[in-house]
Amino acid sequence: MSNYTLSDLKDEVLRRIKPSKEDEAKIKSHLSPILERIKDMEFQIQGSFAKGTWLRGSSDVDVFIFFDKDMKGRMEEIVKGLESRMRGYDTEMAYAEHPYLIVRDGFIEVDLVPAIKVEKGSSIVTAVDRTPFHTRFVNSNLTEEQKDDVRVLKQFMKGIGVYGAEIKVMGFSGYICELLVIKYGSFEEVLRQASLWKSQVKIEIVKGEKGFDDPLVIIDPVDPKRNAAAAVSMKSLGTFSLASRTFLKKPSLEYFFPDEVEGKPLGDVLMVEIDVKEKVSSDILWGQVSKSVDRIKKDLSTNGFRVIDVQAWEEGQKVVVGVQLQERIIGEFYAQPGPFFYMNGVEDFVKENENVWIGEEGRLYAIKRRKFTSPEDVIARSITIKVKHEVSMRWEKEGKRGKAGAFMRKTPPWLK
Amino acid sequence: MSNYTLSDLKDEVLRRIKPSKEDEAKIKSHLSPILERIKDMEFQIQGSFAKGTWLRGSSDVDVFIFFDKDMKGRMEEIVKGLESRMRGYDTEMAYAEHPYLIVRDGFIEVDLVPAIKVEKGSSIVTAVDRTPFHTRFVNSNLTEEQKDDVRVLKQFMKGIGVYGAEIKVMGFSGYICELLVIKYGSFEEVLRQASLWKSQVKIEIVKGEKGFDDPLVIIDPVDPKRNAAAAVSMKSLGTFSLASRTFLKKPSLEYFFPDEVEGKPLGDVLMVEIDVKEKVSSDILWGQVSKSVDRIKKDLSTNGFRVIDVQAWEEGQKVVVGVQLQERIIGEFYAQPGPFFYMNGVEDFVKENENVWIGEEGRLYAIKRRKFTSPEDVIARSITIKVKHEVSMRWEKEGKRGKAGAFMRKTPPWLK
Repeated sequence: MSNYTLSDLKDEVLRRIKPSKEDEAKIKSHLSPILERIKDMEFQIQGSFAKGTWLRGSSDVDVFIFFDKDMKGRMEEIVKGLESRMRGYDTEMAYAEHPYLIVRDGFIEVDLVPAIKVEKGSSIVTAVDRTPFHTRFVNSNLTEEQKDDVRVLKQFMKGIGVYGAEIKVMGFSGYICELLVIKYGSFEEVLRQASLWKSQVKIEIVKGEKGFDDPLVIIDPVDPKRNAAAAVSMKSLGTFSLASRTFLKKPSLEYFFPDEVEGKPLGDVLMVEIDVKEKVSSDILWGQVSKSVDRIKKDLSTNGFRVIDVQAWEEGQKVVVGVQLQERIIGEFYAQPGPFFYMNGVEDFVKENENVWIGEEGRLYAIKRRKFTSPEDVIARSITIKVKHEVSMRWEKEGKRGKAGAFMRKTPPWLK
Repeated sequence: MSNYTLSDLKDEVLRRIKPSKEDEAKIKSHLSPILERIKDMEFQIQGSFAKGTWLRGSSDVDVFIFFDKDMKGRMEEIVKGLESRMRGYDTEMAYAEHPYLIVRDGFIEVDLVPAIKVEKGSSIVTAVDRTPFHTRFVNSNLTEEQKDDVRVLKQFMKGIGVYGAEIKVMGFSGYICELLVIKYGSFEEVLRQASLWKSQVKIEIVKGEKGFDDPLVIIDPVDPKRNAAAAVSMKSLGTFSLASRTFLKKPSLEYFFPDEVEGKPLGDVLMVEIDVKEKVSSDILWGQVSKSVDRIKKDLSTNGFRVIDVQAWEEGQKVVVGVQLQERIIGEFYAQPGPFFYMNGVEDFVKENENVWIGEEGRLYAIKRRKFTSPEDVIARSITIKVKHEVSMRWEKEGKRGKAGAFMRKTPPWLK
């Protein structure tokens, strides 16, 4: 696979991911009867489908329906109205910043999103109102060829696991992929630039009207007070930059369509399965998962466990947190450093502790007994997920494929 | 014991440690026949016996024999001459900076030390030549009552384990005790001052002619280019300062004559017994022991063992190194931090390691296998003692009294 030229590679990727005329026609055939029911309303198709940058297999179509500003407080009512118009379809009311209606028909999912009409992207009421401005900006700044480059870039991001602004990924949104191609002209040039990125990257397509200290700052051209790349974590930034660097040295399809890998437990690996018993949006759930992962790491360290890595992933309806430790069994006692001999706290430190001594540097130490000697006890207390759930834990004994295997292997398949 | 007044306490301590007229007469009766054999030479009694600050039970008498500067290169020859004068006595040639002769008679040990006549303490040839100046300075600056205070101070230092400038102790010499009483006037005032010490203490009885960065600096009045307290470690300084503070709050005989304590192993305690198979001076042996203790600590940490404390002590002819760990069994794998994603070393790090990943902060990590998983293997390699010796190790299973007990208890008996 590594003998492809970069241009051959792009062709091969596009052959696999670019929707055909038939794909497009099929989506439209499902979409038309739905749009027919709102033809008296002011609506627009938005999102990657409207921008011509969607990938084959993605089946989400965003349809924005516009209302005057004075309807701002009546969104729920509007969505209920839409629901009754869609009678006969499989529908579901959902919430982002405000409510919208999901309409399912066969393989496609149409989001009917009420939005407020505004003059400029910078005077929006809620985040969704910005979308039409994004669509317009992208469509007027990308050629058809560049739209293909956006598709290739999106698939690259997907393959290395950094595609998506949602909390679960904390990576690059489709819009960021589009802005990067607008800024740098082509897929190759985006990668070339990204391969040179350092820890703080600032890209100004338009002049920013505010300072940001996110790892990646890309000023939103339709709203210069906003960092369109605020979701990108340092880990995603680093992953994309490093992958760009190694890909340009030795291009390979592996980046776009990684093989499944196998990994064996090194150290002691605890699989913490969180069975979520409540319907909840991905961002709400993963906000809580992400906080729990941070707390698990911190609390394990505080309690003397030596953490190699903690990561979370989805397996069907479950969230799995992989906790990799140097060792699951640790000693009951440790040395706690106290004040130096000349400090005020010395008397209290002596009073409060048994087994106190003066170390070589003139500092007092005491032997303390650990509160926890079982990592499971610490982890159980560190999971701060509020949605209804059940937790079960087991120590991994053998090699695995899939996401658990990837966690244990560590090295991403494209890296080595 | 804690109901003594400070003055009662001093009386009780002196009652136990101040040599009686009979003690002095007994020493002199052993000393006279030895001095008789060198009566044609220019000699002087030196050391604490000459200064009237020695403790009952100490049986060392230093006798300095003076030679002109041109004899400097012929010290060995001189000592051999002394040896033949002492025929019939139990003698032994020993070496400090230059050779001297130990003469044993019953309970006393007389050191016959050849020295070079010099005008001032600052123009000495070797360290021993300074001693007569110390003796003169102390005798002309201490009253009889203050000499008793020196004795009390020495016993205090002994009791808390910081008496002696030798490497084994790295504490306060007799001369430093004398200088402290000269400077501050009394035992009580020395403790009051010491209780206020911070991490760097500088005491100028005369103006220093050089800067020092030792924890304790006491300019030698007979040689202002010298720090007379250079041997005092931060640990000894802190121990004396803290003991002074707690003693003044609640005086007790425990400081002077500590009870033997018992200690149990907390964590995993390895007793490393070093059986020294060669006759060697204490400072040479303990210089090597002290370096080994430092290396054991450092190497154990480097290899992933969590050290609570490492200390060495003497038990008969053996040196014992107590190694206290949080746990003796540790995992085989650990996470090694590597370069950040944008650094030059990234490619090499990826090439050289298996199981590489990008952490949350954009830094690369790799899982490494430990070189050692047995602390005994690490310790065996960290002992850098050059004198002939044999090492044996055993994990301590039970409580102990004596020095091993004190090591495991940690808290000094005077502190709690």
